[in-house]
Amino acid sequence: MSDLSRLSVNQETIRQWSLPELAEGCVTAGVPGVGLWRAPVQEYGVERAARLMRDAGLTVTSLCRGGFLTGDDRAPALADNRRAVDEAAALGTATLVLVSGGLPPGSRDLHGARERVAEALAELAPYAADRGVRLAVEPLHPMFASDRCVVSTLGQALDLAERFPAERVGVVVDTYHLWWDDRLAGDIARAGSRIAAFQLADWITPLPAGVLLGRGQLGDGVVDFRRLWELVEATGYAGPVEVEIFNEDLWSRDGADVLAEVADRYVGHVLPA
Amino acid sequence: MSDLSRLSVNQETIRQWSLPELAEGCVTAGVPGVGLWRAPVQEYGVERAARLMRDAGLTVTSLCRGGFLTGDDRAPALADNRRAVDEAAALGTATLVLVSGGLPPGSRDLHGARERVAEALAELAPYAADRGVRLAVEPLHPMFASDRCVVSTLGQALDLAERFPAERVGVVVDTYHLWWDDRLAGDIARAGSRIAAFQLADWITPLPAGVLLGRGQLGDGVVDFRRLWELVEATGYAGPVEVEIFNEDLWSRDGADVLAEVADRYVGHVLPA
Repeated sequence: MSDLSRLSVNQETIRQWSLPELAEGCVTAGVPGVGLWRAPVQEYGVERAARLMRDAGLTVTSLCRGGFLTGDDRAPALADNRRAVDEAAALGTATLVLVSGGLPPGSRDLHGARERVAEALAELAPYAADRGVRLAVEPLHPMFASDRCVVSTLGQALDLAERFPAERVGVVVDTYHLWWDDRLAGDIARAGSRIAAFQLADWITPLPAGVLLGRGQLGDGVVDFRRLWELVEATGYAGPVEVEIFNEDLWSRDGADVLAEVADRYVGHVLPA
Repeated sequence: MSDLSRLSVNQETIRQWSLPELAEGCVTAGVPGVGLWRAPVQEYGVERAARLMRDAGLTVTSLCRGGFLTGDDRAPALADNRRAVDEAAALGTATLVLVSGGLPPGSRDLHGARERVAEALAELAPYAADRGVRLAVEPLHPMFASDRCVVSTLGQALDLAERFPAERVGVVVDTYHLWWDDRLAGDIARAGSRIAAFQLADWITPLPAGVLLGRGQLGDGVVDFRRLWELVEATGYAGPVEVEIFNEDLWSRDGADVLAEVADRYVGHVLPA
């Protein structure tokens, strides 16, 4: 038997599945963790989703996502993020993934936008900590810097997170977004105990229009997963390893086949040999 | 009259124009510089293109491009790059833009690929210097790291270039590729006299499929051109400022209209107020 004990599958990897199908599918496949998204969880019912996963014996490894904190109208964004914290707490996960948001309309000021994120973190972190939830700042690939996330490198995420206690604000290491960065090894070491989530997807080309759904199945692209595993492992991180792939080809297939392939690729390309 | 004395238009910005149309159009518009590409120049004839531009009183500010030096079969790539040097010399430009190339098939080793680029630069730089041509290493946006250019930041380009004398190997500062990088100001200062070309395009979204043709007209996106101008100016760079936009909308329009718009946007968004 291969060791799937740390494997988690993000529900967007198999978005063709309902939450009950996801729960049943993971149990059948021996995958112990799931990463969830707010919209489908809200639709199903937060408490009901929490019960579903608990009854199936599954661990909710993260909730995606809060964030989008760079806009001019701060109050609604903060209120929505507090709800996201509440949902994470209800689901029993300690990790709320935050995607910062892009440049406000008409702005060219990336630095200023990141400072707004810092201000929002200062407001949200105590609220989250009171509920046992850690905010996990996720750097997204620089191709998303203008319209989705002004935090583009792990170094930038750490520049934000390090203003707060490590147990309150962590960072996400997502191979898809960070694989290209020659400073990544140093930044992972710097992250240390701040690594709140380790997410996997492969980098493949050509990128599709809009570039959001261009992620590759593990092993189909250029990411050196074993090296990144070693770097993350060296920090002492022993938490879940979550596969999060947005790819329309995967969504068009049978969910159980996709999950079996994910587990297979995880063993073949990610787990230390 | 606005000061267009440093403006150059890369021919790919108006690829609907033949070389004679480009020459005539630039003269008419008062644009003194052109950046050329190897394929259309070869098709027209290198010597003939050189004469055309010289007779029009235009300066060839750069030749795009050499490079693609990361593959296993080094000899043909080096031979082709020597031809590119010869063409640059014949055109009377001192700047040959190099795009490094992506990962070799099956490789996941970005660092190793960059070292191959360094080895190739060592072979090419003396040949180029003998012909009055400087190699200009161009970092491309990280979204091209796997399939087009393993050099993704100005810092990485400098790590390569600084192994050689500044007059032999320089770097390209292209706003489209570098605007997102929070280390850019420091890296431009570090570049100093190594800046061999300053190229402009704006960053707009959504990106099209393949992401190659997603560049925006100056002022249509999020790039803070005036700030980048100041940073480059502060190094002492006083050379051409070359507008290089790959965009199918621009290519579908009347070339003279596009060039007039480029000049107008250059004055309104780039030149110091």
